[in-house]
Amino acid sequence: MQTLWEHRYAKRTEKMGSSAIRELLKLTQVPGLISFAGGLPAPEVFPTEEFKAACDVVLSEVGAQALQYSTTEGYLPLRDMIARHSCRYGINVSPDNIQITSGSQQALDLLGKILINPGDRILVEAPTYLGALQAWNAYEPEYVTVPADENGMITEHLEAALRTGPKFIYVLPNFQNPTGSTMTLERRKQLIELADQYGVPIVEDDPYGQLRYEGEHLPPVLVLDDQYQKNGQADYHGNVIYMSTFSKTIAPGIRLAWIVAPKEVIAKFVQAKQGADLHTSTFNQMVAYEVSRAGFLDQHIRHIRKVYGERRNVMLAAMEEHFPKGVTWTKPMGGMFLWVTLPEGLDAAELMKKAINLKVAYVPGAPFFPKGGGANTLRMNFSNASPEMIQEGIARLRDVFTEAVEAL
Amino acid sequence: MQTLWEHRYAKRTEKMGSSAIRELLKLTQVPGLISFAGGLPAPEVFPTEEFKAACDVVLSEVGAQALQYSTTEGYLPLRDMIARHSCRYGINVSPDNIQITSGSQQALDLLGKILINPGDRILVEAPTYLGALQAWNAYEPEYVTVPADENGMITEHLEAALRTGPKFIYVLPNFQNPTGSTMTLERRKQLIELADQYGVPIVEDDPYGQLRYEGEHLPPVLVLDDQYQKNGQADYHGNVIYMSTFSKTIAPGIRLAWIVAPKEVIAKFVQAKQGADLHTSTFNQMVAYEVSRAGFLDQHIRHIRKVYGERRNVMLAAMEEHFPKGVTWTKPMGGMFLWVTLPEGLDAAELMKKAINLKVAYVPGAPFFPKGGGANTLRMNFSNASPEMIQEGIARLRDVFTEAVEAL
Repeated sequence: MQTLWEHRYAKRTEKMGSSAIRELLKLTQVPGLISFAGGLPAPEVFPTEEFKAACDVVLSEVGAQALQYSTTEGYLPLRDMIARHSCRYGINVSPDNIQITSGSQQALDLLGKILINPGDRILVEAPTYLGALQAWNAYEPEYVTVPADENGMITEHLEAALRTGPKFIYVLPNFQNPTGSTMTLERRKQLIELADQYGVPIVEDDPYGQLRYEGEHLPPVLVLDDQYQKNGQADYHGNVIYMSTFSKTIAPGIRLAWIVAPKEVIAKFVQAKQGADLHTSTFNQMVAYEVSRAGFLDQHIRHIRKVYGERRNVMLAAMEEHFPKGVTWTKPMGGMFLWVTLPEGLDAAELMKKAINLKVAYVPGAPFFPKGGGANTLRMNFSNASPEMIQEGIARLRDVFTEAVEAL
Repeated sequence: MQTLWEHRYAKRTEKMGSSAIRELLKLTQVPGLISFAGGLPAPEVFPTEEFKAACDVVLSEVGAQALQYSTTEGYLPLRDMIARHSCRYGINVSPDNIQITSGSQQALDLLGKILINPGDRILVEAPTYLGALQAWNAYEPEYVTVPADENGMITEHLEAALRTGPKFIYVLPNFQNPTGSTMTLERRKQLIELADQYGVPIVEDDPYGQLRYEGEHLPPVLVLDDQYQKNGQADYHGNVIYMSTFSKTIAPGIRLAWIVAPKEVIAKFVQAKQGADLHTSTFNQMVAYEVSRAGFLDQHIRHIRKVYGERRNVMLAAMEEHFPKGVTWTKPMGGMFLWVTLPEGLDAAELMKKAINLKVAYVPGAPFFPKGGGANTLRMNFSNASPEMIQEGIARLRDVFTEAVEAL
């Protein structure tokens, strides 16, 4: 029987759809399955003991404040800590430039809410982060894509895309989700120059920036833009909105992320967030602040780098050993993902069924391309499974890929 | 200097505006000011010790799960607990009918996202909950209003409003925000019959239902609708979406609420929530479950009723003693608010300035009327201030109101 709701859904729901990845993850809830499909941190690195101590301190000392309603902008000491941390990069950011969000997914949703009119063009890399497409599809944009390679967005193709009049450019310069690629310093500078030439602002998504396992840290696009504009103002006033998160450094289960932007943009985010969820959990913000204080977070991130760096090395070595000729993959310098390209003509979504039969899973690459393509690509997560499971999982995938390559 | 963002905001941002109440609350951050303006629970009733114990149990026993990503629908034991609790009312609701949200504000936002096209008419009470208007304005609806009195929405006026073709009806039947009024059983039944006759579904917002200080519990509109439809199906399949929250029974700082709806509607909420914030904090859901278990919540709600019931009585008695002739107010049977009507010709927003000078604050009523009116009304919260502060605050307001009434 139909309910009265059935014919009343808003037009935008036709664009929304369920996340292909999250639906796929349901198929992988099989005992013994080794999943490289999710984007999960390793639970072994969660600072559970530090959390326990922080909860105790917060509830004992400021419990009534932690459990009460609070401001939409976010807990001031936490915003102050983020601002001070951002200043290390050599840019003047004050707490007034920071909005706390309920995970980066909410930052993406609020971006869509304050910026996207139906039909607006948004310039993204191909492939790009699926969560951004999912947040923004509800606001009914069109996408303009610029191809990316192992060095990030191919800026040689950027100008043609900019001439279509996009509302903003969305990039993930560090260890991109899904490819693991890092945008070179030269391309970052080209991006800023071309964006400035065409007067198009930039959204920089940087969830993994601190998880670098080799090479030198590169300055965020936000910082390069500030230098390029020779802004010199006391607070950040540039053309980049920067986002990052505590999900990969503290824990994703507390849903805590932030946006850095000019004050006028923060004012719009505050309006949008008031309507969306009033504010992010006071308790979680205070506990995260308590966990991060006194240098613990820096020390903890060094530990995470060691664990994930080793897992990346194990996965790369196992692929080298097992994968058949014709299969290639990226060698990320950080983050949680790498990107596999199968020979042309193979379909990663089709092969996924065989993989699940052998109790191993990945994410087919096609959904990461908003304008189509990528059928022969796939994303592999290396942060969640143990080194032993990674070796076993890659050995299982070898059988799937070798059979497919030989049948070509 | 302008940024590139300045001319790029979406059209919907023109409708959003900042919450009048939240902006006003900033003015009341003055030492010694007695505020009846917010909608804050009393921090003295927060179960801080139980929270501390629950955090310890959750982090010690299932810490890795609590800090990890989880499903969009919400933590199954919590949904199961809510479903079992709902079944007490005599209606078959399973966990598949429950969506956990990041506070009720997010439930309202997701409702707007899945249901409201620009220009759709939404039928609301006048006055109605400001947070709903704020969530929905971003989706650009029109409002159709039905006046309300001390017995809730005046259903005699409902049919004319239904004939304008609204997408859904929004009601707060118990101890409404802002008026404190409760819809009578007879009017609830009339609402359901007329809604059924015109084929228009209902959204029932019930944040305060458990905070009743006198009189008999009335069945939710959801339950009455289920009985009227003689549904008899194993899972709820009716025309009402019901929402409630842990903000008034456990604590608002953890941002935890829920929606009850037919499964097909829950599927749409899940899609919308995936894009909006992936999921609500795993940690907070597990801690709230742990706090609520083993009968603690029922016992704690009895304590809250005692504290708030006394504060209501103190406020009513102080008004009776101090307020001048011509000023009237509601006598709520529960909840956190009551509603004051000044003589025609007085402007509660104007008088607010004098009140703040005397270090006492309330919320002017006009913003609660989406189609205008209500200049001589105001909302008073009685849950947050202590009985002594309530008496002192009402005495201060006496001076403001008496002077204004005498000058008429």
